[in-house]
Parts: sequence; structure tokens; C-alpha cells
Amino acid sequence: MTSLLIRNGTIVTDAMEFNADVYCEDGRIVAVEKGLDAPVGCEVVDAQGCYVMPGGVDPHTHMQLPFMGTVASEDFYTGTAAALAGGTTMIIDFVIPNPGERLLDAYQKWRGWAEKACADYSFHVAVTWWDDSVREDMGTLVREHGVNSFKHFMAYKGAIMADDGVLTQSFPRALELGALPTVHAENGELVDYLQKLLLSKGITGPEGHPQSRPPKVEGEAANRVIQIAGILGVPVYLVHNSASDSVDAIERAKRAGQRVFGECLAQHLVIDASVYYDKDWNRAAAYVMSPPFRAKEHQESLWKALSGGVLQTTATDHCCFCDDQKEAGRDNFARIPNGTSGVEDRMAVLWHHGVNMGRLTRTEFVALTSTNAARIFNVYPRKGAVQVGADADIVVWDPKAVRRISVETHHQNIDFNVFEGMEVTGGPAYTVSRGKVAFERGELRAERGAGRYIDRPPRAPY
Amino acid sequence: MTSLLIRNGTIVTDAMEFNADVYCEDGRIVAVEKGLDAPVGCEVVDAQGCYVMPGGVDPHTHMQLPFMGTVASEDFYTGTAAALAGGTTMIIDFVIPNPGERLLDAYQKWRGWAEKACADYSFHVAVTWWDDSVREDMGTLVREHGVNSFKHFMAYKGAIMADDGVLTQSFPRALELGALPTVHAENGELVDYLQKLLLSKGITGPEGHPQSRPPKVEGEAANRVIQIAGILGVPVYLVHNSASDSVDAIERAKRAGQRVFGECLAQHLVIDASVYYDKDWNRAAAYVMSPPFRAKEHQESLWKALSGGVLQTTATDHCCFCDDQKEAGRDNFARIPNGTSGVEDRMAVLWHHGVNMGRLTRTEFVALTSTNAARIFNVYPRKGAVQVGADADIVVWDPKAVRRISVETHHQNIDFNVFEGMEVTGGPAYTVSRGKVAFERGELRAERGAGRYIDRPPRAPY
Amino acid sequence: MTSLLIRNGTIVTDAMEFNADVYCEDGRIVAVEKGLDAPVGCEVVDAQGCYVMPGGVDPHTHMQLPFMGTVASEDFYTGTAAALAGGTTMIIDFVIPNPGERLLDAYQKWRGWAEKACADYSFHVAVTWWDDSVREDMGTLVREHGVNSFKHFMAYKGAIMADDGVLTQSFPRALELGALPTVHAENGELVDYLQKLLLSKGITGPEGHPQSRPPKVEGEAANRVIQIAGILGVPVYLVHNSASDSVDAIERAKRAGQRVFGECLAQHLVIDASVYYDKDWNRAAAYVMSPPFRAKEHQESLWKALSGGVLQTTATDHCCFCDDQKEAGRDNFARIPNGTSGVEDRMAVLWHHGVNMGRLTRTEFVALTSTNAARIFNVYPRKGAVQVGADADIVVWDPKAVRRISVETHHQNIDFNVFEGMEVTGGPAYTVSRGKVAFERGELRAERGAGRYIDRPPRAPY
Amino acid sequence: MTSLLIRNGTIVTDAMEFNADVYCEDGRIVAVEKGLDAPVGCEVVDAQGCYVMPGGVDPHTHMQLPFMGTVASEDFYTGTAAALAGGTTMIIDFVIPNPGERLLDAYQKWRGWAEKACADYSFHVAVTWWDDSVREDMGTLVREHGVNSFKHFMAYKGAIMADDGVLTQSFPRALELGALPTVHAENGELVDYLQKLLLSKGITGPEGHPQSRPPKVEGEAANRVIQIAGILGVPVYLVHNSASDSVDAIERAKRAGQRVFGECLAQHLVIDASVYYDKDWNRAAAYVMSPPFRAKEHQESLWKALSGGVLQTTATDHCCFCDDQKEAGRDNFARIPNGTSGVEDRMAVLWHHGVNMGRLTRTEFVALTSTNAARIFNVYPRKGAVQVGADADIVVWDPKAVRRISVETHHQNIDFNVFEGMEVTGGPAYTVSRGKVAFERGELRAERGAGRYIDRPPRAPY
Ligand SMILES: [Zn+2]
Ligand SMILES: [Zn+2]
Ligand SMILES: [Zn+2]
Ligand SMILES: [Zn+2]
Ligand SMILES: [Zn+2]
Ligand SMILES: [Zn+2]
Ligand SMILES: [Zn+2]
Ligand SMILES: [Zn+2]
Repeated sequence: MTSLLIRNGTIVTDAMEFNADVYCEDGRIVAVEKGLDAPVGCEVVDAQGCYVMPGGVDPHTHMQLPFMGTVASEDFYTGTAAALAGGTTMIIDFVIPNPGERLLDAYQKWRGWAEKACADYSFHVAVTWWDDSVREDMGTLVREHGVNSFKHFMAYKGAIMADDGVLTQSFPRALELGALPTVHAENGELVDYLQKLLLSKGITGPEGHPQSRPPKVEGEAANRVIQIAGILGVPVYLVHNSASDSVDAIERAKRAGQRVFGECLAQHLVIDASVYYDKDWNRAAAYVMSPPFRAKEHQESLWKALSGGVLQTTATDHCCFCDDQKEAGRDNFARIPNGTSGVEDRMAVLWHHGVNMGRLTRTEFVALTSTNAARIFNVYPRKGAVQVGADADIVVWDPKAVRRISVETHHQNIDFNVFEGMEVTGGPAYTVSRGKVAFERGELRAERGAGRYIDRPPRAPY
Repeated sequence: MTSLLIRNGTIVTDAMEFNADVYCEDGRIVAVEKGLDAPVGCEVVDAQGCYVMPGGVDPHTHMQLPFMGTVASEDFYTGTAAALAGGTTMIIDFVIPNPGERLLDAYQKWRGWAEKACADYSFHVAVTWWDDSVREDMGTLVREHGVNSFKHFMAYKGAIMADDGVLTQSFPRALELGALPTVHAENGELVDYLQKLLLSKGITGPEGHPQSRPPKVEGEAANRVIQIAGILGVPVYLVHNSASDSVDAIERAKRAGQRVFGECLAQHLVIDASVYYDKDWNRAAAYVMSPPFRAKEHQESLWKALSGGVLQTTATDHCCFCDDQKEAGRDNFARIPNGTSGVEDRMAVLWHHGVNMGRLTRTEFVALTSTNAARIFNVYPRKGAVQVGADADIVVWDPKAVRRISVETHHQNIDFNVFEGMEVTGGPAYTVSRGKVAFERGELRAERGAGRYIDRPPRAPY
Repeated sequence: MTSLLIRNGTIVTDAMEFNADVYCEDGRIVAVEKGLDAPVGCEVVDAQGCYVMPGGVDPHTHMQLPFMGTVASEDFYTGTAAALAGGTTMIIDFVIPNPGERLLDAYQKWRGWAEKACADYSFHVAVTWWDDSVREDMGTLVREHGVNSFKHFMAYKGAIMADDGVLTQSFPRALELGALPTVHAENGELVDYLQKLLLSKGITGPEGHPQSRPPKVEGEAANRVIQIAGILGVPVYLVHNSASDSVDAIERAKRAGQRVFGECLAQHLVIDASVYYDKDWNRAAAYVMSPPFRAKEHQESLWKALSGGVLQTTATDHCCFCDDQKEAGRDNFARIPNGTSGVEDRMAVLWHHGVNMGRLTRTEFVALTSTNAARIFNVYPRKGAVQVGADADIVVWDPKAVRRISVETHHQNIDFNVFEGMEVTGGPAYTVSRGKVAFERGELRAERGAGRYIDRPPRAPY
Repeated sequence: MTSLLIRNGTIVTDAMEFNADVYCEDGRIVAVEKGLDAPVGCEVVDAQGCYVMPGGVDPHTHMQLPFMGTVASEDFYTGTAAALAGGTTMIIDFVIPNPGERLLDAYQKWRGWAEKACADYSFHVAVTWWDDSVREDMGTLVREHGVNSFKHFMAYKGAIMADDGVLTQSFPRALELGALPTVHAENGELVDYLQKLLLSKGITGPEGHPQSRPPKVEGEAANRVIQIAGILGVPVYLVHNSASDSVDAIERAKRAGQRVFGECLAQHLVIDASVYYDKDWNRAAAYVMSPPFRAKEHQESLWKALSGGVLQTTATDHCCFCDDQKEAGRDNFARIPNGTSGVEDRMAVLWHHGVNMGRLTRTEFVALTSTNAARIFNVYPRKGAVQVGADADIVVWDPKAVRRISVETHHQNIDFNVFEGMEVTGGPAYTVSRGKVAFERGELRAERGAGRYIDRPPRAPY
């Protein structure tokens, strides 16, 4: 029996702050009280001066994703280890079947890949095509495999794009299963047109990437999918909102009484489109992800959407490609594998630029990095809470810890860090995963295979 | 030489009111002054107590349209005659090629059909498919045939629908030609899905029509096409906005600095969706048009959009199908030919419910029924103005004339009137077309073939 | 030692639903687990088929308020008893000093009046005038008397109105104390003008009440106070939003990153302005409260604002005046004492029209009737939670209980019920206050003086 | 008899462009046709390569205004001369009575001062206080003195501020007279509070000016006055909108069907708040005007509001104070006389940054610099039009003329130019005032006293 006592900290949840100790046994929290004594043999963590918060939940990662002709360099082992180093104790990754591939087959494949994970994980499953087998597999996944969300890509024409016809099949199916449709919202037809137009004009470098995916491309798709969901009576979750255009679409829908959830990435909150004009091709290419980074004014819009309740979650879309992989697009920006790292840095970036800068309260920080995702994807209060009965996934956060983010020191398996050089104050002193200290003041003790697949039941009570 | 003097009236334009006489020769206005004398042989109209205004321009009609397996009952002769009876002196109709049909061929066919028109007319040409010949014909039409606007249907899947791929080809082409893309905005994919869903549930009657085309279906498409136009840098004109959803999309775009024009139909301003629940199938079917009539609250939104400058024009989408034609959809609402009459009644409905009810000023009435359409489609001040040099297309409007609109008395070639029984105060005492009195206090003197095709040059100065 | 076990119910909080028993001792919850055994002497409540939820918190009542020349008929004893009968276990009432009166003096007076309360209570304190003593007393109230919110009336010119000058003094003071300014938002100058105008036209009946307080009067003041708060950097809470105008103002501010909270009353959600045109003067007068009831379309806007997160709390502004009191305005609507009952009916109305009608989920119901108010006014999780350590203020809600609301059967001390005749499904089977059953299936066992004053500390962690 | 022929130009009005000559006699346009011959003795202007447009109307100037303890350095002679040098042929200035002063007395005083004007002029009259004499004088001014607009200052507390009580008296009076209320919208109470706060913190320099008048101060007042006007049923005109906050308030009202007009100043379109941080006190002070210059993002919002129809007019608030006058606020920014020049530069700034930059079409330029103001203040088509019967107030605009704006070369009587150093392409080749060439390619021939007072009748037909 493992046991752990976290003493002297200030507990912060999404709703309150109070002083108490936390005692964990066998991976669960069994007591939250002041002045607890440590049983014999119990490991003790001193949280003096620290905040004791639910471990982060990153609801959007892509470990070892096969994509654009290569495979993401970060696998489920290294990726969840890096997550723990940053205070994140659970990820929700994506099963992405090829068009024509059975959803169940793809799901089993990803389950196999993920067995080496050090932290808990779960899977959204993508609907990239449609026939009766897809409908059937959606049912099986919900009923038998703990899946309660299905992803749809409105971009990537000719590959995994789901057009309006697929959406009108998949969304009502999700609704009857009590599952939540999630969406990557960009107008794939426009992206395709603009890519070709730019290439025909000789624009082949990374600057073509943001030019082929302007904010309206995202805003249009966001509004469209929200209207489609509204007509079909389905709640919907929009991943990685990067522009005020899509945020505004979400807000309009919420004001009209529709149930819409929105996510944004730590990266979009602090990085702007100027990076694509770096004269060093490799640096510019390293930032290529979709949606791209935006003009600076969008950042403030995202922060306000987070504090104002328009967006509910933060994620990273962590999807790592190294220099030699990015090279595939040397002559054509449209072939640069899309993706950046982030899973290790999300919480520190949110804390530093959010809490330290006065944009977020600490309770909001917890809601936005952990609790809200746990609720929306229906694993609360198992995850996202510091309370008796919850999983002992906890981060002991030192508000005074200073770190300079760098590829030199990060744990992510990628040769670039989009936050390179950013100094952040506040970070994990300890990360506790399933009741064990997996990270302690700079030392990573992640255990390969210690992570568990988390079933997510349908019909969340939101 | 024909000559005509209109005396003693109050001239109302889109910008001012003043007392003056109007003298016309050979179809043009040659003097606008107080106290003009009538030359020998000159016809004299006494406009005492009346407003002398530019004749109406209806920028959206479909005379003798082949559609949904039949042909609209109103032809260019009867349709323009009815227009004159209502004070409208010019229509802009639509050439709608079948997918695969050369635009020029279709254009010539429609030109032939229209030779019998009594009033002036012009044509938007629809882009219902795409290949290089379409691109080429668009150029020829603009340069040689006086066409400066091209229509796109986002609905009618499997027939004339233009998907996003067609729009991204056609819009930039229109832009380089100095022509204006116009759009019927409804999400055709959703309409198709909802029609099938409703039919599968046994909903086959006319009430299925509005249920398969809810406001969001229109609002989504409106927003989408505006964003597409915005990305491509093209101005765009949205026909028949019927719902606050699309009006809001236009307003947002205008506020963001985009050049967007919007039209609404006289019918949508005063008729609501309850008509589709009429127990008499034939009555309910008679109201089937797209977009359908809406819940009452949308009407006030449209009126405010007209007075507030969000919408600029009023039209009718005049497209007549008689009872036996509507029968085609007896067992399936989706097969009821879409369309209603309106060209004769538009101006009276706008005056009565607009000016008399205090929603519009008289100058706004002129702008919204005539001048704005003339400007946007670049035939101003030839049309839409009462000034020296303009075509003598004039309506002498008697604000005290009372009429009960009815199929019994209307001049339209259709066995139903959607405004049946509506009493309106204010109507044409005289309608002058090309300098001749074509309608005089109830007596229609329209002359078959007297109408002329009006060239519309590209690059309007808006 | 009192002890109570609530068995077999489904616990619903603002964030989740789960099956567990709840064991309370000495007024606090000490265990929330499945399969708890009842100690000897422990009272047992069977919650089979019921939801076990935090007791309601009504953050806006006026018991025995001296107002408009009379005193509200409901006192702290009868009012809190009625609250318990409806499932509400805490009220936050208002200390309203006369202009010139020391805040501390008024506070002590109200504390005395409230000693007879049966349920827990607290006080907002109104700032109705300004000088240095007010500044000083605000500090004393926060530091020594558990007050963390100050109320401001933008209406009631010539009486308790706080003009912009007072607001600019009081708001920064509240900010430095960590207290929350709350506001009744109506433009008092306009109300005064319109009252006089209407009276001068001979409109003296209750219909003059809504005509003198149109939605723009509220929307204007809401926007104004939000901008003032924004400039001063102070969070602000707007009471009783009744119109889409003020909801829109709140939404705009939230989207712009400002911290604004909004409340709405159960009454405004379901009653419309037609009541003021009742031919029975007494009935019409009974509905006179400010803001007045609105045209129906505002109701849907309020519901959407509740589910969409624009408004966070529901209240009643419970302020009872009987027929003979209302008579004071027989000849002048402006003299009709403003107020209606509601404290007993709020939760049932919210459940029936919210949850049963599909507008709200059960977790949202809890948030909107209890948890959010507890958080904003910083008594969470003592109130607003069903968890170990919380006060044992619990409602066991029977979703099948049917009640016809009526003055005949209600427990409120007023001779009229604005919900008269409304049949609601869902209501309290048991209300538990401080660990004791105060209401059991129709039988009220409220105990005079059992309620306690609840200190509310400053600097809530929102 | 003076006569003038303008040949070979392209006429641009608010609605169209065409090639024609313009012949003027005795101060009026008597022919607009192609190929006109010059009568004997007729002066001829060659407009080859130029645009012939209505002379500018600046609806907001303050010549020789007594204000803040001094008098504006620019008088009606020098000011209208400078206007002519810039292509503006009419100004509407302001009569501003002191509180307590009879409106008629003030009006007569200003009429006397203005007799030396070189160009046509008219007066808005301010309502700075209220009693029955004000009501009476408003009537006399409308009926007998050609006044159709009344100005209200919501700022300048303790001086000329009109509080909500004055507005509710004055607006209905204007309505019954058919006159238009105009408003300077800033919350005077907040300005006063912020000024004192800043001064108490030792902020005494010009940077205190914008800090004491943030955008919300303007947006709040704009929204308030619009709601007040809406409740009272009065159209309203907001002068000098400088921030997206007030523009948004106007847009919301227009969308809601209210008749609201908005103006913006050339200065706010291109100058931002950084000027107040100039280390040279005198330079910083020279930019002090109210509302102050704003952060850059507001500029794009204003441009979009102009092209999108939310704002209708451009003006300058021309109000000149020289260095020694500005010195009055050396130790207290609140005492720096408010005002800058602009009347000479407005049209060139609008053309260069509007038309040349692709933000405005030429027809929009005419509407925004001349026609719209003429319409709103009901002097159209006497002013604001190039058509037979109009006053011969014309600007012949050379789109290739290049000028570097500078205090060294301007004609304005002030020792500073806020546009100093700005190079503009496009400017007046000739300015024609009442049929005479008053400015010719750099040479000013303005004639003292040649300007006439222009009666503006009530009840404009907008
Ligand atoms: Zn994505
Ligand atoms: Zn992704
Ligand atoms: Zn259509
Ligand atoms: Zn049509
Ligand atoms: Zn109140
Ligand atoms: Zn109250
Ligand atoms: Zn001003
Ligand atoms: Zn001014």
C-alpha cells in the first residue's frame, strides 16, 4: 500500500482556496483536513508556501501520431513523462482512423501504443468518413470502451476532412449516444484554394502557412459547425480556437442559449504570427501548426474569452515533429508537418501570463487547466478535483519557482521549443500521479506503463 | 416625339422632397422645374396631392422560369405589365443555365423570352457550375452584353447548387471583371438532410417546408459566403434575407469594414410562418418559397435593417406557380415548386407598412424601392432618379389611394395572392414607363414589347 | 447532539451527480458516502427517488423593509419560514440606511430585526449617500461585521438614489476593502421624467408603472454602471436584471474581459407586462415592482443568459406589501409600494420552467439557485455545497411532487401570489436547515430564532 | 453678373461619377452638361484630370470661441479663409450661451462675430442650462432664425454640462420643433473624478488628459444619450466619435431601428494617443482636445464605421489655441484649453488616407465630407450637390497634387498643426465659393465678409 501526505499547503480548486493537508492511499485521496498525521511509512511532501491543486488535464494531444507522411516524434511514454514534469497528470489523445478504416480497429491500435504511458490517458475518436460501420462502431466505443467524444476535422481536404454531409450523420449519432462531438474548425475548401493560389504566386515558405489559413477561415468554420449543431440540437466542443472570429461565434451561440464549449491552446495565448517571417526557415517551420499563430490582437481576445467564460479549457495540441521531419515542406509550406510541442509547458505559461499578470485568478487557473476539461469529458471529480474519493493526481505548485523554458532542459522529445527563452515564475514543485510522486523539484521519476486508460462515461451532467 | 408633363406634384427622391413639375420627351426627363408650361400636343398628368418618384426597380424576379419540372406561369409580358400596375418600371431577372450549359447560350435564350416585356429589364446570370467556358463566358457577358452581376445558389443540392469550390472560382473572376456576385444563401446540405429526416418521419405536408429550412440554415450560409467574399476581397450581394440571423451576419461584416449588400422581399416583411399550417393544403402550398416565411419576430428585424442601412434593397423573387403546378408536391413538400407572386404589390406593401406605419420616411422608401438597386447594379441615375437626363420611368404616387389586394383584381398571372385581403393606403395613380403613361388610376396600358434591355456597365462607383 | 442521515438519494451539486448518503451532526455535514449506517438516535430521511441538493440561497430579499411610507408585511420570522417551505435555507437581505443615517446604526437596527429568523441570513449594506462617515463605516462593516457587499440604487430619485458622484466614491472604497458593489440599475432621472409625463397625461393607473420604466431605462443604467466599474477597476454585481437590454450590457462587458455578475428574479422569468393591464386595479397593483415585468421576449433572453453563463444567480427581491398598502397609490401609480413575494416559490419555478422544460440541467439548477450566490458572496462551501464540512443546509427534492401555487396555501405573509394558479412539478420533500428538518412534505417546522447571522469574509476567490 | 465655367472635369457626387462641364451664374449652378460653351466674360476653369465635387461642409467648428478663460485664436474671417484653402465651402459653428444667458442673446452675439466670414456658415445653438426662456428661445430660433439643431455637452462639469435632467427637457422640445439634438458625449462626472484622482497622484502633465478621459468615458455617455433619445423618440447626432466604444453604441442603436447619426473628426482618424507622451510639453499640450486621441486600434474602427455607414459625417472641431494660451495648463492638464486646428486639412487627410488607401470610394468621400452633413442639417441640395439649382460651392480636386502639411504654409491662425509633416496626395486645385474662385492652386483669394449665413429649415426629410 502506497501512502502519501501533502502537508502545509493551500488547496486551490476551481471554486475555493483553503488550508488543509491531503492524505492519499493507493492512488486515491482519502482525507482532506487540517493537521493530519503521517502514518508510519507514509511519504510526506511539504507544501509550505505552495498551492495544492488538481493535476492538469490536457484534453488535446497527439502522441506518436502518423500524420502527413511521418510519425510524431513524441510517443506516449515520453509525452506523458513530459506532461508530469509540467504538472499535467492526464491527457486525452486522439484515435484518428484513416478514411475507410474501422473505428474499432484504429481504437485498438492506439490503445496498444498507449500502454507505455506514465500518466493516465483517454481517447477522443475521430470520424473521418461515414458508413454504417462507423455508426455501429461509435455505439460500441461508447457502450464498451469508455469513449464519450468524437472528433471531426473540417480541414485537411483530401485526407481526413469531414464535410457537412458527414457532420449531419455523425452529430445526431453522437447525440443519441450521449457523446460530445468535437471539431477542428477551418474551412478546408478555402485552405485548399488559398494554398494553391499562394503556391502559384511563388509563395512556398512558411509565411504561406498563415496566409493560407487567415482568421476568417477559422471563424467561418466555427460559425458553420455551431449552426449545424444548433439545428441538430447537439452540444459541440471546438478545439484550439485561435482567433477572435471563432470566439465571437461561440459567444453568439452561448448568448442564444446554445450549449457550445471552446478550447484554446497555451501557444496561441502568447505567440504571434511574426514567427513565420523568421529568416531562418527551420525556425519558422518549427512553428507551423494549424490553426496558425495570429496577429497579436487575437491574444487579448483569447485571454478575455477564458476569464469571461466563453472558452472553458486550455490544451496544447501537442504534436511533435523534429527538424528533419519539418524538412518535408522545404519547397512547399503545405507539406510541412503541422504541430508543435507544449504539454510540458502549458501550466506554467497559463500561470505566468494568466495569474501573475492579473488576467486569471487562481481558481480560474484550476478550472481552465483541469476541472473544466474533467467535467466536460465527464471524468470529474475523479479528475480535476482535490477531494476525498478523487484520484490522487495532484500538483504542488510553487508560485516562486522560476524557470527559463528551453529545448536544452525540457523533457519533450523534440528539438525545438516554441516558448524558447520565456522566463516563467511559478511551476510544479511536485507532481503526484495516482498517489505517487512522479516529479519532484526538477527530478522526473515517471514510470513507464504506470498510466491507466480512463473510461469516460456518456451523458455528462453539464 | 412623345412628350409628357407631370404637374403640381411633390418630387421625392432618395435624398429630398421639393415641389416641381417634370417634363419628359422621347422617354427621358428633360426638365424638372416649377411652373413648366405644356407644349402643344404634350400629355399632361396632374399630380396634385401626389408624390412624384422614380419608378420602382425590382432587382429580383423570375419570369417564365423553368424550375422544378415546370415553368413559372408569369411570363415577361404579363409580369412586366403587372409590375407597371404596381409602380415598378424595371425588373432585373435571372438567366439560370443548367449545370453544363454554356452561360452565353442560356443568356441568349432568356433574351429571346424577354422581348415581349412591357417595361425595361436586365439580367443577372447564374453560375451553377464551373469550367473554363464559364470563366470565359463571364468575361464576354460583362464586356459585350451589359451584365454586371452573377448569381450563386448555395442551396438546391443536386441541381443548381454552387458549393464552396465553385464560389472560390467564380468570386475572384467576378472581381477582376468589376461585376458583383450575388447569392441565395441557404446551406443546401442541411436542407437536404432535414428534408429527408422530415420525410422519414412522415412529415410530407407544407409545414415540412419551413421546418427543413430554419433560420440558422440561412444565417449559416450568409455568414459563410460573407467570410468567403471577405477572404477573397470581393463585394457581395445577398438576395432575399428573411431572418435576423442573416441580417446579423451582414451587419457584423459591415461593421468590420466589408462591402456587403443585402436585399429583402416585401413578402417576408409582413407574412409569417403560420401560413404553412393552414389546413387547406393548397393555400399552404401557395406560400411555399425559399427562404420560407419566418416567425413574426424576424419581421421587425428586417424592417429595422432596412431603416438602419443594413439592408439596402427590396425585391419580390416574383416566381409564379399556380395550383396545378404546386400539386406536384402533394405527397412531398420538397417537390412543391418554390415561389410566390409579388411584383405588382411590393411598392404598396412597402409604403403602407413602411411609410404609413412610421417605419420609413418617404426618402427611404424611394431609396429602398428604387434608387439603391439602381446604384448597386449601376444603372443610376438613368434609373432610380427624377432628374434631367434620367429615363422617364416615374411613378405618381397617391398617398390616399386605397386598395384591397386580391387575386380577383391583380394583374399577375397566378391564381393566388400571398397578400390576399390586405388593405393598403397609398398606390400608383400613374406609372410612366419610358415617358409614356402605362398605368392610369386602375387602367393598365402596358404595351407588349415596349420594354428594353438595359445594359449595366461594370465597376459601379459604390 | 442532533444527527441526521439522508439515505438513498442522488446528490446533485453544481458540478456532478452521484448516489450517496449524507450524514450530518450538529448542523454540519460529516460524511457523504454510500451505505452509511444510522447511529442510534439519528433521524433518518429517506431520499429514494429524490435529489439531494444544497439548500437554496436567495441573495436578494427585503424582510420588514420600511419603504415608501410603509413597512413590508413579511418579517424575518415569517419570511425565512416561507423560504424553508420552498427549499431555501439562506437569505441575504439588505440594510438600507436613510440618507444621512450612519451605516453602522442602520446595520445594528437590521441585526436586531433579524434575530427572529428561522434560517440563516446575512446583509448587504446600501450606500445611499456619501460622506467620510460612510467611508469609515464601510471599513468597520467589512472588518468587524462580516459584510462583503454594498448596494447602490441608481433609481428612486429624491430618496435613496446614488448618483454617479456617489458611485465614484463608493466603488473604489469597496475595491480597497475587498467587497463587492451591487447595483439596482435604472436611470432614476428618466423614471422621474416619465412618471411626471405620464401623470400629466392622466395616466395614473398601474399601467403607468411599466411605461415609466421601459427596458432602455434599465439597460442604460446597467451599461453605465458597468462602464463606471470598468474604469474604476471594480467588479460589480447587478441585481434583478429583467430585460435583454441589461443582459446584453453584461455580456458585452464579460466579452471585454470585465468581471461582472448578474442576477435575475424568478418572477421576471415567467411573468410578463400584460399583468399591469388587468382591469382589477388591486390585481394590477399587486404586480408593481421595479424593474417591472416585461414583454414576453425578454423572458427567453433571461433564460438563455442563465444557461449561457451571462447571469449567475437567481433571487426574488421578496418584498411584500398587502392590498391595503398598495392602496397608497390608488390615484398615482408612482406611489404604489414596489414589491412582490417570491422567496417560497423561486426554486420550484426555476425547476419546473427550467429543468422540466429542458432549459437547465440539474447541475445548472443547483448553481443558479445556490452555489453561485454562495461563491460570489463568499460563503462557499459553507453554503451552496453538499460535502463534508459544509453547513447542513440541504434540500431533498422530489421531482414528482406536484403543487399548485396559491395564496391559499403559501406560507408567505402577503395576500397575493404573483404565481397564483401555476402548477409546478418538483419541489422540496424535506428542507434541512443547520442539520434539522425544518420542512417535511408539506409540514413546516421552522423554529423562530434558529437562524444565524452568517459572516461573509472579504476578497472572495472568484 | 459673375459667371464661371468649369470644364473637362469628372463630376463626383455622393452617388455617381460622370463627365460634364459646370456653368455657374450669380452664385448658383445653372447648367451641368457636356460641351458647354463659355459666354463672353465668363471665367473658365480647366478641370482636366480633376474631380469636380461639392465643396466641403464642416459641421463642427468653433471660430473665436470664448473657452476656458481665453478666446480661440482663429476668427470667422481667418477660419473660413483657411477652410476655402482646403476645399471646404461651408462651416456650421456653435453658439454657446453661458449658463443663465438667453439663447437669443448669445445667438445675436455670434451672428455679429461671423459677419466677417469669407465662406457660408450656420450655427448650432447649445443648450447649457434650462428654464422656460430656453424653451421659448429654442422655438424662436427655429421659426425665425434658421436654426435646426441644438447642441448638448455631457462633459465640462461645473461649466456648460447638461445633465440628464436638462436632456430630458431639451430633447422633447427639439423634437416638437423638428430640430435635431446634437451631443458631445463624455461622462462629465467621471472626467471630474479622474482629473482629481490623477492630480492627487501628482500627474499634472498632458498625459493626464487622455488618462482622465478613457474610451469608456465616451462610450458610456454615447450609450446613455442614445438610450435617452430612444426613450424620448428623438433622433440624435453624436459629434466627434473617437472610440470604438461610442461607434459600437451607435451601431447597436441603428440595428435596433433607432435614428442616430454620428460624426468623426479627421484628426482622430490618423493621430493616436502617443502624442501626449511627447517630452516637449508644448507639443504634447498642443494636441489636447476632447475627446483625446486614442490608442491606434480605434482608428481602424472609425474608418470602418465611415465606410460601413455607422458614421455619416466628418468634421474637425476646429478650435485653435496657441502656445501661450495652452500655457494656462502648464501645472494642471485640466486647465489646458481644449482644441486643435483642422478645418483646412480635413479634406486632404480624408482623401489621402481614405481614398488613396482604398478605404473609401470617391463617392463615399463626397458623402462623408459634404453631402451627408448637408442632408442631416437640411441644406441639401443647396449645399452638398453638384446639380442645377445648387449653390455654386464647388471644389475642383486634383488627385495628383502633393502637399506636405505644415504650420509653415497653412492658412490657419494657429502656431501648430497636428498633421505637421504629413505628405498628402490629392488636394484642391480650385475652390469655388458662391460662384467665385476663392482659392486657385495655392493662391488664396478669400474675400472678407463674402460668406452668408445659411438658414437651415426644420424637419429634414431623412
Ligand atoms: Zn486540429
Ligand atoms: Zn489536434
Ligand atoms: Zn433564391
Ligand atoms: Zn430568386
Ligand atoms: Zn431593486
Ligand atoms: Zn431589492
Ligand atoms: Zn466637443
Ligand atoms: Zn466642439
